[in-house]
This record gives sequence, structure tokens and C-alpha cells, in this order.
Amino acid sequence: MSAADDLQQYLTVRRTAIDTALLASLPSPPSCPSAVADAMRYSVSAGGKRLRPILCLASAEAVGGNWRQAMPAACAIEFIHTYSLIHDDLPAMDNDTLRRGQPTLHVIAGEALAILAGDGLLTEAFALMAREPRDADATLAARKVRVIEIVAVGAGAAGMVGGQAIDLACVTPDAAGTLPPPLDGESLRAMHARKTGALIRASASAGAVMGGGSDAQIDAIDRAAAEFGLAFQIIDDVLDIEGASANLGKTAGKDAAAGKPTYPALYGLDASKRMADECLARAAVALADVRLADSRLLQIGRWIVERSN
Amino acid sequence: MSAADDLQQYLTVRRTAIDTALLASLPSPPSCPSAVADAMRYSVSAGGKRLRPILCLASAEAVGGNWRQAMPAACAIEFIHTYSLIHDDLPAMDNDTLRRGQPTLHVIAGEALAILAGDGLLTEAFALMAREPRDADATLAARKVRVIEIVAVGAGAAGMVGGQAIDLACVTPDAAGTLPPPLDGESLRAMHARKTGALIRASASAGAVMGGGSDAQIDAIDRAAAEFGLAFQIIDDVLDIEGASANLGKTAGKDAAAGKPTYPALYGLDASKRMADECLARAAVALADVRLADSRLLQIGRWIVERSN
Repeated sequence: MSAADDLQQYLTVRRTAIDTALLASLPSPPSCPSAVADAMRYSVSAGGKRLRPILCLASAEAVGGNWRQAMPAACAIEFIHTYSLIHDDLPAMDNDTLRRGQPTLHVIAGEALAILAGDGLLTEAFALMAREPRDADATLAARKVRVIEIVAVGAGAAGMVGGQAIDLACVTPDAAGTLPPPLDGESLRAMHARKTGALIRASASAGAVMGGGSDAQIDAIDRAAAEFGLAFQIIDDVLDIEGASANLGKTAGKDAAAGKPTYPALYGLDASKRMADECLARAAVALADVRLADSRLLQIGRWIVERSN
Repeated sequence: MSAADDLQQYLTVRRTAIDTALLASLPSPPSCPSAVADAMRYSVSAGGKRLRPILCLASAEAVGGNWRQAMPAACAIEFIHTYSLIHDDLPAMDNDTLRRGQPTLHVIAGEALAILAGDGLLTEAFALMAREPRDADATLAARKVRVIEIVAVGAGAAGMVGGQAIDLACVTPDAAGTLPPPLDGESLRAMHARKTGALIRASASAGAVMGGGSDAQIDAIDRAAAEFGLAFQIIDDVLDIEGASANLGKTAGKDAAAGKPTYPALYGLDASKRMADECLARAAVALADVRLADSRLLQIGRWIVERSN
């Protein structure tokens, strides 16, 4: 089997396990009213690459742990990613009507229920990480607390939510109707480090913690994941220019058309692709420092850069 | 000193400590972008009774614990309560422009930033409970995990968010423009048990866990807090009829005018007040079962019923 086929098979197997665990972890009636349960399920079931949970499980494996121990954190992070898309798509935010090729939740269920479903998914993420895995041993409790902090910091106002606030400010005119000047390269990178990078880093770090990694391993995996996150965003911008709407499941060229700063706009397409490759090279160095260069993690990084949607 | 003066002094001292801890626990620049940090601070600083954190600290004390150990959970729960008000006030939800006598956050900062600030507060709540208290002992980690689960379940789709979804359904017309029939008494109680009761219960239970209470104590405090939560809601409905806008800091009579089901509408004012007193009586029985009837908790319950705003 070629390395590419082997990776595809790995991703398929993990994605199936993740999809099953996600649905099993969602709250359902009668403990949860059906309207909000249905709304949460609609968005979680809409598919997606499951990049963050896959990275979480692979990080647990990379440090010699059992990936099943990291599954609750992996699902929790996908809940958080899903909530962020629901709120990001709202009319008051990006006002997107299409996501992963399907109508966005607020189009289907109304704005109010979409806000609540997002709130519900974010909250459920923490319930899940606290509840599972269920074994009541002291080491596990300490790992859970550490993972919950990592995920909350990555998802919160210092991380993802903060990045969205910066992104929002870029497209919000002042009282005179004037937009702020476009971000320069360094500011764009800092914005994305929060908006997408922080949760991708948290995914990998959380997996490494649940897998019982050493502090040095957790730190190296965190640094590698920061590079993956940057590469992911650069490629996202590239695909926004090159991709067709059908592949992306969202409107191609929308970010560029909205005047949002992008890597290709700042550096051009070829240089952007080179920058993504350089991210992978730096990730390889970080992982080699703790002898994890042969783990699945670098293959997953390569997949991020070579994906077409 | 009279019992009433003694309670007022207790509440003032605790409220001051809570307000200080709340501000110290908020994320701030440079780790958090200033726009979202300012928005979060605006809503947290808007005041309020601090009922939930007070109940959390008093529960820790009632079981013989140190209330300072419960302060992070108390602040986290107030962050969650604050986020729920921000999102509840949004144009897509209740569309309120006044809260605690001040303009609501979306009026000041715009809808998008209000959504993000709410998301940030909810997420920060879990970061705070995972991070503090900082001592790295195994008992504490186990308590934190238990408290995080209690709070997430109370705040989530099976609790507060679920209650808001039921409340929303009551005022959402179907495709033909027809509103659903009003809730009967049992359904109203079930809705409030989620919408306000679940987080009030979680406040008390979380305090009892952090204070090192026995399972029997935690259970009794949880049952008493469920009664406090119901009494709180009944009195809220009574004040919505009787109160002036100035006292409430919101528009009096608004719920009744919106056709929302209320206790006075179903049972009349006098019977509603009697029902609130009966809640306190049942709470007293629950607490007496574990010899906690002399704790501050019942005084706090009485304060909930006798408040004027």
C-alpha cells in the first residue's frame, strides 16, 4: 500500500469512529428539548474534514497513548469548532447562507435557535471533557483539568474568539463609514494564529496530554500544530481563490471579494504555497526534537497542505 | 445586630469580594484583544445581585469549607449568567435594550461583538474553573472535574440553554402565524427549572463540592437550591407585575405584555407569593435532613423571596 493510500485509510477509519462518537455524545431528548437537540445535531452532522479531532487522536497515539482516551476531547473540540461556524455564519457576523454545501443553521432554524444551538455545543464540549473517559483515577482527573484549560484558552477570548473579534474589526467601518486600513502580513498572521491556529494547537496538545505525553512532547506537538494551523489558513486562502464553490461547500472568492486580507492578496499565490510548505518544514524540525518525526502527525500536516477543499 | 442587618452585612462583604474577583478573572490585553475584553468587562461590571456566586460561596461555607476555594467557580457561574443575559437580550432573541438600568451590550458594541463577548465569557468560565484554585493536589483536581461537569450540565442544552429554547418556542409563531397554546402550570415550572433553576442549582452544588461536602450534603443543598430557583422565578414574575422599571433596571410588565406565561397570570399574585413561601419551607426540610438548616443558606432563600428587584 502506498503511503498516500495508507493515510487515506487511516483518515477514513478515524473519521468513522469520530462521527459515531460525535453523534453518541450529543445531548438528546428527553434530557434536552428536541428543538435545540435537533439544531445541534444538524450542524454536527453536516460533515467536514474532522481535522481537529483527527489531529487530537493522532497526537495521543504519537506519544504512545490510546487514542480512545482522547476521543472525548476530540469530540468536544469538534463541537467547539461547529459552534464557532454556526455563530460565524449568523447575519450579524459573516451572514453566510451556505456551509459545507448545505444551508446554514440560522437559515433552517432561525437566528435565535442558531445562537442557542451554538451556545449549547460550546457548553456541551466542557461537560463531555469533564465526564469522559469515566475511569475515576487521580491521574486522569489531573489530565482532564489540564485539557479543559488548554481547550478553553484556545477557544476563548485570548484565542479563537479573540481572533474573530480582530477579524470583525477589519470589516467594521467607523462612524464616518471608513474601513480600517488592511492588516499587514504580521497582523494577518497574528489574527489567524488566534482565529484558527489556537484551536488547532489545542486539538493537538489536548491529545498529547490525554495520551500521557511528556511535557517536552506536548510542547513540541503544540509548536508543530501551530505550524499546521498557519499552513491550514494559508491553503484556505489559496483555495478561496482557486477552488470552485462545489468543492469548498461555500462561496469561492467570498473572502477576497469582501476585502478581507488574505495571503494570496499580500504575497501572491506561488509565494503563499511556498509559505505553507515552509510551515511543514518547521513542524518537522519541532517533532524531530522529540523523535516524533515518524509519527502520523507530519503526514496529517502534508494532507492539510495538499487538500483540495 | 438584627438578623436582617447581619445578612445585609454578609451580602455586602461577599459581593465586594466577588466583584473584585470577577474583574481580576476577566481576560485583558495584550493576551486578549481590547475590543472583546472591553465588551466582556462592560457586561460583567453592570452589577446585579450576584445571587449565584453568593449562593456558591455560602454553600461551600455551609459544609464547613473555605469559601475562597469556591470563588473561581462562583465567578465562572457569574460569567455564564452574564453571557446568558447578553445573548438573551440580542435582537434575534428578546430584543432588550435596557438591562440593570444600562443599555444592553449589543446597543453599545453592536450585535456581532455582543455575540462574541457572550461566547468569550462562557468559554472563560471553564478556563477559570480548570485553572483555579491553583494548588496541584489530586483531591482538588477531582473536585474541579466534578464542578465543571455540574456547571456545564446546568448551563447547557439539558439545563439553561434548553430552558431558553422552550421559552423561545412559546413566542415563536408557526408558518401560519399562530402562536403555540400557552404553557400550563406544570410546563411553566419545567421550563423555569431549566431556564433559571438549573444554573442556580449548579451554583449551590458547585460550592458544596468545592467546600468538600459529603454526597448527602451536596444532594440536600442541590434540592434546596432547586426550591430557591423556583421561588426566584415566581418572585421575578411578581416583580414584573408589581415592580417599577427603575427598581428592576428593565422594562416592567414586559414579560406579561409579550404574552409570556407567568405565575401571576396562571395563579394570581397572592397565590404566587404563597407558592414562593412554600418553596422556602421545602428547602428548609431538605437542609434540616443534613443538619444545615442553621446555615446562611435559608437566609439567602428568604432574601430571594423578599427582594424588591
